[in-house]
Amino acid sequence: MDRLITLAHGNGGRLMRELIDELIVPRLGDLLLDSHADAVALDTIAADKKLVVTTDGYTVQPLEFPGGNIGSLAVHGTVNDLAVTGATPHYLCLNMILEEGLKRTVMERVIDAFADAARQCNVKIAAGDTKVVPKGEGSGLYLATTGIGSKNSSIDFCASNIRNGDAILVSGSIGDHGTAVMLARQSFGLSGEILSDSASVLPLCNTLLSINGLRFMRDPTRGGLATVLHELQSLSGLGILIDETVIPIRDPVKGVCEILGYDPLYLACEGRVVAVVAADQAELVLARWKAINSGLNARIIGHFRAQPKQVVLKTSIGGERVLFELEDDPLPRIC
Amino acid sequence: MDRLITLAHGNGGRLMRELIDELIVPRLGDLLLDSHADAVALDTIAADKKLVVTTDGYTVQPLEFPGGNIGSLAVHGTVNDLAVTGATPHYLCLNMILEEGLKRTVMERVIDAFADAARQCNVKIAAGDTKVVPKGEGSGLYLATTGIGSKNSSIDFCASNIRNGDAILVSGSIGDHGTAVMLARQSFGLSGEILSDSASVLPLCNTLLSINGLRFMRDPTRGGLATVLHELQSLSGLGILIDETVIPIRDPVKGVCEILGYDPLYLACEGRVVAVVAADQAELVLARWKAINSGLNARIIGHFRAQPKQVVLKTSIGGERVLFELEDDPLPRIC
Repeated sequence: MDRLITLAHGNGGRLMRELIDELIVPRLGDLLLDSHADAVALDTIAADKKLVVTTDGYTVQPLEFPGGNIGSLAVHGTVNDLAVTGATPHYLCLNMILEEGLKRTVMERVIDAFADAARQCNVKIAAGDTKVVPKGEGSGLYLATTGIGSKNSSIDFCASNIRNGDAILVSGSIGDHGTAVMLARQSFGLSGEILSDSASVLPLCNTLLSINGLRFMRDPTRGGLATVLHELQSLSGLGILIDETVIPIRDPVKGVCEILGYDPLYLACEGRVVAVVAADQAELVLARWKAINSGLNARIIGHFRAQPKQVVLKTSIGGERVLFELEDDPLPRIC
Repeated sequence: MDRLITLAHGNGGRLMRELIDELIVPRLGDLLLDSHADAVALDTIAADKKLVVTTDGYTVQPLEFPGGNIGSLAVHGTVNDLAVTGATPHYLCLNMILEEGLKRTVMERVIDAFADAARQCNVKIAAGDTKVVPKGEGSGLYLATTGIGSKNSSIDFCASNIRNGDAILVSGSIGDHGTAVMLARQSFGLSGEILSDSASVLPLCNTLLSINGLRFMRDPTRGGLATVLHELQSLSGLGILIDETVIPIRDPVKGVCEILGYDPLYLACEGRVVAVVAADQAELVLARWKAINSGLNARIIGHFRAQPKQVVLKTSIGGERVLFELEDDPLPRIC
């Protein structure tokens, strides 16, 4: 029979220490700096580097979905937020808020996936904390991770660097993560060939760092590509024109979205990068991305222009439509 | 009428940006490094210092209690974990997991208290994230904070430094936070003169850093003083003898615990320090603490000895009893 998490596993006493020593430490093993200290000293960042931090909460439902689970997602999401600033991630801090009654086997799989992803991204776990809340006041497991990395002091991507005419690229197909989670959540009777794209974007970002005309990178998660484009439009003070027909969207994702009435432009990705570069560098970015497995479907999808100060889509029938900002949530809790 | 948090406040779109810009940014204002970036660059830590990090989740119920709320607690708890290692805190990262239906006025008070506490502790907010979960899958508001600080490379408190004969001190009365939260949770008809001791222990820790014989500091939170003593016993490999009659416990806390059958030794503090020092330095520690308001009730409560390898209490009637490790949770969710 499945053993379950109880409230006493969060009380700071013997049962909690056993949970940490039996279930958590053996899985995270080599990744842990210190499993018992309240606060941990880290190796000092080199003097010519800048320290970079980011933090994110994870509340995805269901906890497990095709292509990943909340554990791998909590690594990728936080690593990716560092990667798009040009930073190399070094450490993660991990908070777990467990719901009483959670199956220990589920927790084991989540921590295993967390550990695998952390090893792949070459990050250590600097600190952790576990709380247990009563049944009915959680949904199995929430995670919150803080990422700590470093970057060369000279790197400073900022939307204010963006110039009229700059090109906009996306590193791969959009909407996969959002659609995979949606299908995992409910039995729509649709086939399950859609996997989350949850992955580290470090290789995609690192390969662009030496390109001179690189202005800005961002990973389109909550709110999808549409939300990143709106942010870029607003921060740059320019207009954006996107060729809708060029945006890479997998056929199964397109199919599911058409049936269910979702617009994939608003659905989350968890392993894609949107990059802005000087127009004459766009082909170089494309070539670098296509040389990496995760960038095979990269595309130049549009460019900045002076007017109108909106995000405009050139549609497949040759018309233009304004892409509106996300208002109501089409699909909550995808990360 | 009270405005409520909705799921759309967590979707990454317009409503979420409004929540951040209207409710969060004005309150945290001067404390924020950058309210819109995914990851933020920090000032580099001096080369002769070590970077120190800690992370903690906060799930206390009720969200507000006499002497504080979950916001002030989330600052103090994390700052204190840094302080007891001898570090100076510089930055906090803040994760909020909101439950749909949370009153905005409650959230406002929590963020106000977070901001006040952060200003008092002189920490900036480096990064933040907000998620909203459906009604019935949270309990109003969970927080997770990561603290980043620095300390002199020469400081290394470690329980293995502890020697036979070393003295054990506590900086003030114990059990106040646990009792205050318990009384706030249920209507016992007991008077409300008990306030949480939630506070920064930075002044208490800083004043000891120059003492040569200082071996170890720890803040007794979940599991209370008893759990810290058990940890110290286990990590040092020595025995501990505590004079129960000397442990400072306020009369109202004693009274409530007697009526309800709780042992204050297991109840959480959120503004106290347990220190271990060479025996001949104990009076100096006491004098330094008593010179600070929050250390007025400090006491030397016991010492390490070779045998037996247990935590033993000398009781008021002159006998001895073994202090057992916390097993079942006497009072869950006090932090």
